[in-house]
Formats: sequence, structure tokens, C-alpha cells
Amino acid sequence: MITSTANPRIRSVRELHAATGRREAGRTIVEGPNGREALVRFGVTPELLLVTEDDEASLAFASSAGVDAVVVSDRVLASASATRSPVSPIAVIAIPERRGLRSRNTVVLIDVGDPGNVGTAIRSAAAMGWEVAVAGSSADPWAPKALRASAGATLGIPPSHLGSVADDVAAADLATVALVVSGGLPPAAVRSALDGSPCAVLVGNEAHGLPDSIAASADLRLTLPMTGTVESLNAATAAAIAMYELSGSRLGNASTA
Amino acid sequence: MITSTANPRIRSVRELHAATGRREAGRTIVEGPNGREALVRFGVTPELLLVTEDDEASLAFASSAGVDAVVVSDRVLASASATRSPVSPIAVIAIPERRGLRSRNTVVLIDVGDPGNVGTAIRSAAAMGWEVAVAGSSADPWAPKALRASAGATLGIPPSHLGSVADDVAAADLATVALVVSGGLPPAAVRSALDGSPCAVLVGNEAHGLPDSIAASADLRLTLPMTGTVESLNAATAAAIAMYELSGSRLGNASTA
Repeated sequence: MITSTANPRIRSVRELHAATGRREAGRTIVEGPNGREALVRFGVTPELLLVTEDDEASLAFASSAGVDAVVVSDRVLASASATRSPVSPIAVIAIPERRGLRSRNTVVLIDVGDPGNVGTAIRSAAAMGWEVAVAGSSADPWAPKALRASAGATLGIPPSHLGSVADDVAAADLATVALVVSGGLPPAAVRSALDGSPCAVLVGNEAHGLPDSIAASADLRLTLPMTGTVESLNAATAAAIAMYELSGSRLGNASTA
Repeated sequence: MITSTANPRIRSVRELHAATGRREAGRTIVEGPNGREALVRFGVTPELLLVTEDDEASLAFASSAGVDAVVVSDRVLASASATRSPVSPIAVIAIPERRGLRSRNTVVLIDVGDPGNVGTAIRSAAAMGWEVAVAGSSADPWAPKALRASAGATLGIPPSHLGSVADDVAAADLATVALVVSGGLPPAAVRSALDGSPCAVLVGNEAHGLPDSIAASADLRLTLPMTGTVESLNAATAAAIAMYELSGSRLGNASTA
């Protein structure tokens, strides 16, 4: 059992809390029973599993999955955890590297800075059968906070990292739909223009929206119709409603499809 | 200028970080330039404003609004703030007490535990012209974290606190729509059953959903059509899509209304 928070293996897990540590190691951490269940659901085998000795479910998972399980004290678990209320286990996984886009409905998060928003948007994309890409200064989808907000969905649909949004979208032959607060087409008009072709919905920064050049050069601009007095939705909420409006989900909605 | 974090006025502001402190005082805090702008937008006059001496915009606001402004050091501001990156000003406001429901479209958050979800749902309700009520063990909408997630929208549509959901909904003569993960009607069928009458959409806990008794006794059950592989949306996202589907927003979507 590891009982020292200075143990080199524990230190290397702690380094994954920071973006630089994750980038250098190509790894991240997934925590708690919900995290473990997401690993099982999506068939992801961790490289290392830190467990407390009373966590029988995780010890059984490690043994059935052939994973290197290391028993740690509560204090060591807490020091390796990125949460304030750590619960065993902590799994170290390799980050799947994906670049470019496929010719499928994709939400592209451009400069979405809050890890909670990035994770929540990924969760919505998974629920609606969309893919995800991140670009610009968006928060790292593999940050522990973003992974938690995704409820593990990130493991099922690893996002692509885009260098040039325009080039990658063109290479995948996707129509681009810029989500803008005002002045765009209503959802029905965008659906009609797309006529069933897959698209890339571009979602911008929480405070500043999309860069003007990207909004202006998109094939279509979409504005969600709002009736209230406050001007805008949370970025992840707006992304979810845009995907909902432009996806096959509409087909389940017989009288309005 | 207050330079001591032990100053009694600063201590009383700090007490508003906790639910018990807010309940006892009937007050909460609103922070930063965005918070100040929300106060202006919704015509809320703070009882006290803590400002740093270089924050000219807040000093001007205090003088034009006739508010008691107290200049504090950066260290005192930090000790009074509920955030890790405090920015002047910190405003103390009275919490408007609202009970019961009006006969208008209302989203009712029942046991929604995460303050971020409560605030995000309030922001969405404001954007779509809905009212909000909270019940059960839902997070306090006046907690600083919930207020931030609402982007100040809570100040514009102060939520009602419900004792008995069933009694309050019946008193307002609202049709109840339970949002359930599976087995409910699609949005178009719920819209058709409501036929333009105002409704109360009931949204449950992040992990457990609505209590069975509440879901079973609702007039209608709504399930959002999902095509993906992950079973559920974030609670605030699901609430937003439900409101979107059942609100006047649909009218802006001409070809599908």
C-alpha cells in the first residue's frame, strides 16, 4: 500500500491535474465509481488504478480487466484527486489523439473557455448522436472538471482537435452553421437549407461569441428564437438546442418534423 | 477604507456565503462588474457595496444609485468574496421572497442539487420567458455560485419557493408536465395536449430524476427524443430543451410550429 503522498507514482498522477502535465504525458485521470462505470461502458482500459482497500468494486474491476491496481491510503487518494471530495478509484488513462473531422454532424467548440461548458456540450452531443471538435482556446475536454461535466461521455466520443477550423471543415465536406445570438436564420430555415446533409455547428466563446471572420464566412448562420428578456443562453445550453434542432431527434417529434 | 478582514461588516458579508447565513439575514451577495450590470438592468438597489478604490465604475454607480459604498483593500475584498478570483464590487442585496405560482409557464426544479444547474436553468427560463420555482432539496438559487451561473438572470425572475408542489400547482391551475428520461410523450404530443394552456414543467434530481409519486401523478409525462448512445442530458440542458419545445419560441420556427 502506498501511504506517502511524495511517492513518485502519486506525484506523476498529480501532474495530470494541469494541462501541461496532461499534454506531456498524453494521459488524464478519471475518478470515482461513475468514472469507473464509464470506463466499463466504453471499453477503456486504464493504465493504472489507485484504489482504497475498502473499494471492493474497483478491486474486482481491476482484476477482471487485468489492470495494475495500487492500493493507497485515504490521504494519498485525496492528494492524487482533482476533486475536493475524492472517492476511490482514480484511473489513469491514455488520451486518444484525434485530428480532423468525419463527414458527420459535429459541434465545433471554438474558444469555449469553461471546462464545465465543454463537458456539458460533449454530454449533449453524445445524447444526440453528434461528434465533437474543439478549436482555439477552448478548455481541454480531458481536464478532470470537463470529464466530470460530460458524465464520462467524452470517453465514448473523443473530440477532435482542430488547427484551422476552415481547412478541417472543408476537408470533411461539411456545411458550416455559425450559432449567433442575433441576425441568423431560424432553425427550420437552416434545416431546410441543409436538406439532410451533415453539418458542423460552430459555437463560440461564452462572453464574445464566435470570431467575426468565422461567423461571416460560415455557409449558414443560425439564431435560436428566444422570447424572454435576457439576451442569451449559456453556451452549452445553446449548443444543445442547436444540435437538437438540427439532428435526427427532430424525427421523433412527428407532428413538427 | 476598511483594511481589516475582521471588521464586523465584512464578517457579516462573509456569513452570506453559507445557506444558513443567507436565510438568517435574508440577504445575498452579487459580485463583479457583470453582477453590477445585472443590478442596473433589473433595477435592484443594493444595501451595501464593497468597492476597491480604483473601481471608478462601481463608485459612480454607488453615487448615482444613492448606495452606501464602502472602500476596502484588495485583501478585504478577497475575504468577503465567494469566488477564487474576486473582482470589485461586492453588492449585498435583500433576497426577494416569493411563494406560490402564477398562472404562467413555469419550470419547477425539484431536488436539483447542483447550484450551477439551478442557475443555468434560471438563465434559460429568462431567455425563453418562463418563470422558475424551486422545491425539495434543490440548491439555493441565491447562492453565489448559482447566481453566477444564471448570469444575473435570477435578479430579473426571482424564483418561488414551493412547499407542496402538488398544492401550489393546483392553486395556480397549471397543467403539470413531468420531464422523464423514458416512457413519456414526445414534445409535439405534449404541446398538442396542452393546447396553449400554461404548464409547470417538473425537473428532477441529476442522479435520480423525479420522485416516482410526482412523475406518476403529473398530468403529462414528456420524454425528449434522443438518438445517441448516452442515455441522458444534463438536468439544466434537459430543462432548457423542454422549455424550448413547450414555449412560444416554437412560434419563431415557422415551418414547424
